[in-house]
Amino acid sequence: MSAAVKFIRENRERHLDQLNELLRIPSISTDPELAGEVRRAGVWVRDRLKAAGCTRAELFDTPKHPIVYGEWLGAPGAPTVLVYGHYDVQPVDPLELWTTPPFEPTVRDGRLFARGASDDKGQMIIYANALEAHLRTSGTCPVNVKFLIEGEEEISSPSLDAFIMSHLDLLKCDAVVVSDTGFFAKGVPSITHALRGLVYLQVDIYGTKSDLHSGSFGGAVINPAFAAAQIVAGLKDMNGRIKVPGFYDKVRKLTAAERKAFASLPHKDAKYKKELGAPELFGEKGFTTLERTWARPTLEVNGIWGGFTGVGAKTVIPAEAHIKISMRLVPNQKPDEIAKQVIAYIKKIAPRAVKVEAKNLHGAEAWLAETDHPALAAAARALKRSYGKTPVFMREGGSIPVVGTFGKLLGVPAVLMGIGLPDDNLHAPNEKLDLDQFYRGNEAATALFEELPASFTGGGAPATRTKAVPKQKTPARAIAGVALLKGQKKA
Amino acid sequence: MSAAVKFIRENRERHLDQLNELLRIPSISTDPELAGEVRRAGVWVRDRLKAAGCTRAELFDTPKHPIVYGEWLGAPGAPTVLVYGHYDVQPVDPLELWTTPPFEPTVRDGRLFARGASDDKGQMIIYANALEAHLRTSGTCPVNVKFLIEGEEEISSPSLDAFIMSHLDLLKCDAVVVSDTGFFAKGVPSITHALRGLVYLQVDIYGTKSDLHSGSFGGAVINPAFAAAQIVAGLKDMNGRIKVPGFYDKVRKLTAAERKAFASLPHKDAKYKKELGAPELFGEKGFTTLERTWARPTLEVNGIWGGFTGVGAKTVIPAEAHIKISMRLVPNQKPDEIAKQVIAYIKKIAPRAVKVEAKNLHGAEAWLAETDHPALAAAARALKRSYGKTPVFMREGGSIPVVGTFGKLLGVPAVLMGIGLPDDNLHAPNEKLDLDQFYRGNEAATALFEELPASFTGGGAPATRTKAVPKQKTPARAIAGVALLKGQKKA
Repeated sequence: MSAAVKFIRENRERHLDQLNELLRIPSISTDPELAGEVRRAGVWVRDRLKAAGCTRAELFDTPKHPIVYGEWLGAPGAPTVLVYGHYDVQPVDPLELWTTPPFEPTVRDGRLFARGASDDKGQMIIYANALEAHLRTSGTCPVNVKFLIEGEEEISSPSLDAFIMSHLDLLKCDAVVVSDTGFFAKGVPSITHALRGLVYLQVDIYGTKSDLHSGSFGGAVINPAFAAAQIVAGLKDMNGRIKVPGFYDKVRKLTAAERKAFASLPHKDAKYKKELGAPELFGEKGFTTLERTWARPTLEVNGIWGGFTGVGAKTVIPAEAHIKISMRLVPNQKPDEIAKQVIAYIKKIAPRAVKVEAKNLHGAEAWLAETDHPALAAAARALKRSYGKTPVFMREGGSIPVVGTFGKLLGVPAVLMGIGLPDDNLHAPNEKLDLDQFYRGNEAATALFEELPASFTGGGAPATRTKAVPKQKTPARAIAGVALLKGQKKA
Repeated sequence: MSAAVKFIRENRERHLDQLNELLRIPSISTDPELAGEVRRAGVWVRDRLKAAGCTRAELFDTPKHPIVYGEWLGAPGAPTVLVYGHYDVQPVDPLELWTTPPFEPTVRDGRLFARGASDDKGQMIIYANALEAHLRTSGTCPVNVKFLIEGEEEISSPSLDAFIMSHLDLLKCDAVVVSDTGFFAKGVPSITHALRGLVYLQVDIYGTKSDLHSGSFGGAVINPAFAAAQIVAGLKDMNGRIKVPGFYDKVRKLTAAERKAFASLPHKDAKYKKELGAPELFGEKGFTTLERTWARPTLEVNGIWGGFTGVGAKTVIPAEAHIKISMRLVPNQKPDEIAKQVIAYIKKIAPRAVKVEAKNLHGAEAWLAETDHPALAAAARALKRSYGKTPVFMREGGSIPVVGTFGKLLGVPAVLMGIGLPDDNLHAPNEKLDLDQFYRGNEAATALFEELPASFTGGGAPATRTKAVPKQKTPARAIAGVALLKGQKKA
């Protein structure tokens, strides 16, 4: 065990206390009223980076929430890693379903419950702890480290692309490291090599100029809440297939090898269903659960509301109803094109007796990366050292839009080394982070900094930005990666 | 003009001030947190009845909100009228659509805006003003008057039937008078002789045990908000016809004479559509707007909600979604039977992958009354004296469940002499009462007390309760009533 890792072990309590400080700040980026709290979280991160040993740490203002940049560049000749993460969090409603308040971090059964515990405060902070551990034990770090920690991830990073584009030199690096994903399962460390894309729409449906008494007017006009239901129900068929014309046209089909690789992972529908507490699993006919969540596009109603939603009865025909709909995309689907198709279809199937407005709130392309870069091998070694097992490659149904941006704009590989678990309740009540995952995660980050230099000695000079934009290709390699790791496990 | 009516004219300002006092009390009966305010409104009504001259005025407690009873019985030998009304009001959401706060009554353009202005505080109070006017000008009143003013009408009067049943002697009367309806149109005074019934359901749809991240889990499970939409959309076809098997089986069909009578009323779809601000009118194919709202059963979504409903985006698959659905019933449909049919159908069409719970919140039968009782002729004369025109008979799509109860339990006719207007925004933001309607309404109530005695001199002894429960029959007579009034207008 290195001195730095030993330092990490000896500072578990402090690391938890510090994380709790950050978790107590309600940095919900989608709520305009909490902008001050989001900024306070950014300031906290900046100060933590300074305390960890960054020689530069500052806030960059954006039209919404600040980006935190930090750096320690005291290892000339060594490779440079750019740590990306975010300090903003999801909303907390429905609040009444939280066992303890979302911004009062609480440990129960070895799990730390708080909004942001796993997504992403408790994950991104492990690299600050890792840098500090190296600097405090040896006065230096095996790699140069840059931090890019944003406050707008949960609102789809509206400022981030522009910031990266205008700070390419500042962000120059040899690899991006992100911990904002998770293990395939507890005891199965994982590296994520694919993410789905996203389109998020809001649909507003208007009927009469005012709410109406459903007795006096029931039968005379269409009901926008009813029209909303008709629209939503019209988007998918009973087999879970999306009915929007053209929606599947560009979808990259799964190969037989990929389907085989997915099937080889330790997934059991019965266990998964039980963990979710679902009456039944349900998805597009003809695909397995992993195929549906990792490699097939989906459409979900994220919110629907109209009329009276309080306790008791109110006999009203609402004047308006609203829907939030998002689609998860897979490689080759273009967010803008999909948004247009879906909006056109919604307007086509909407009843004539209501007025329908739809807007595209934001989108991101899917990401599918090669798995044979040496940086990933370094991450695999770091995870094995900390969690005792060689990791598997997996995909993730969610989206981290900036990962694609890094590949395009910085031309470097991204290492997605998440330490969350599938039952972390991301975006849901009772979000948590297992403390064992957190403590070992700090060790894994520390070990990663030790393992990375070897990945770059054979290749080009460190900190050389590749100018060409690499294509998001190589599904075969991705699968080969899984196979390779499976082989390693046997070895 | 009688002295009493003159008194009414001279006291307009005070009547408005007093009404404003009552309108400032947020007596929303469906909100458990406002129970104290509801009671405060009840106390206000009791005190007003006392001040108006009632020799007895008191609150009767119920499991929820108190019933106010008042009486002035100083005219032995004269008929007794029982005034029914309610002092509770509907919820006010969406609050942001009110031009002025719902409980700060405000006059704009001769209209008094406030929750409850028309439904029913501003209507029921006219009878207190009428009694006062008679007593203050002549020391007596042409009729005995009883008041039954409840605080639970907007939650479907859960305590009222039991109260009536246990106080039949207290409530003994020759006619019930209710002002909780409205004119067919401005300038068209009206007496309502039919009301639709009601069934109100809440449907709760449950998926996984917690909200899920729509990226990580999109495609794996059904979405309760999507299932809610499927259920709602499955309840009616594209022509507005309810698909629940058996729903229309017992519906009393409109006769050719009734359809002709409806068509003779001064209704124009184009004007109606414009007043409502509806993109299009919409309803069951094969019926006119008046037929759809007065004599055909309907099904409306009064509320639907699930998932994220705030500003911005949240990528969540909600764990649950909810629907409030109500059906308006017409004669011969039984509320309990309809509730069972609809719940069974909802459970049949609901996707298997969610758990669905449905409960029947409350119901009421439709009411269709004879139009040839002399009490209605008295009301017609009173309206003509105050508004200058002979009234028409009309129906109302809404429900006043107690009207049916009065017929059954007290065996007396009900006179529905509403002074609201169709654009009063009942149950909606910016509820209002036209001040001219209110001022003349006070006169009409005062005139009604003068006109009623003549209606009972020919018939049986006053204050004789008919023991037999009269059947709700005589559609032919109802139509004859309309025809008669049309004849009167010509005369």
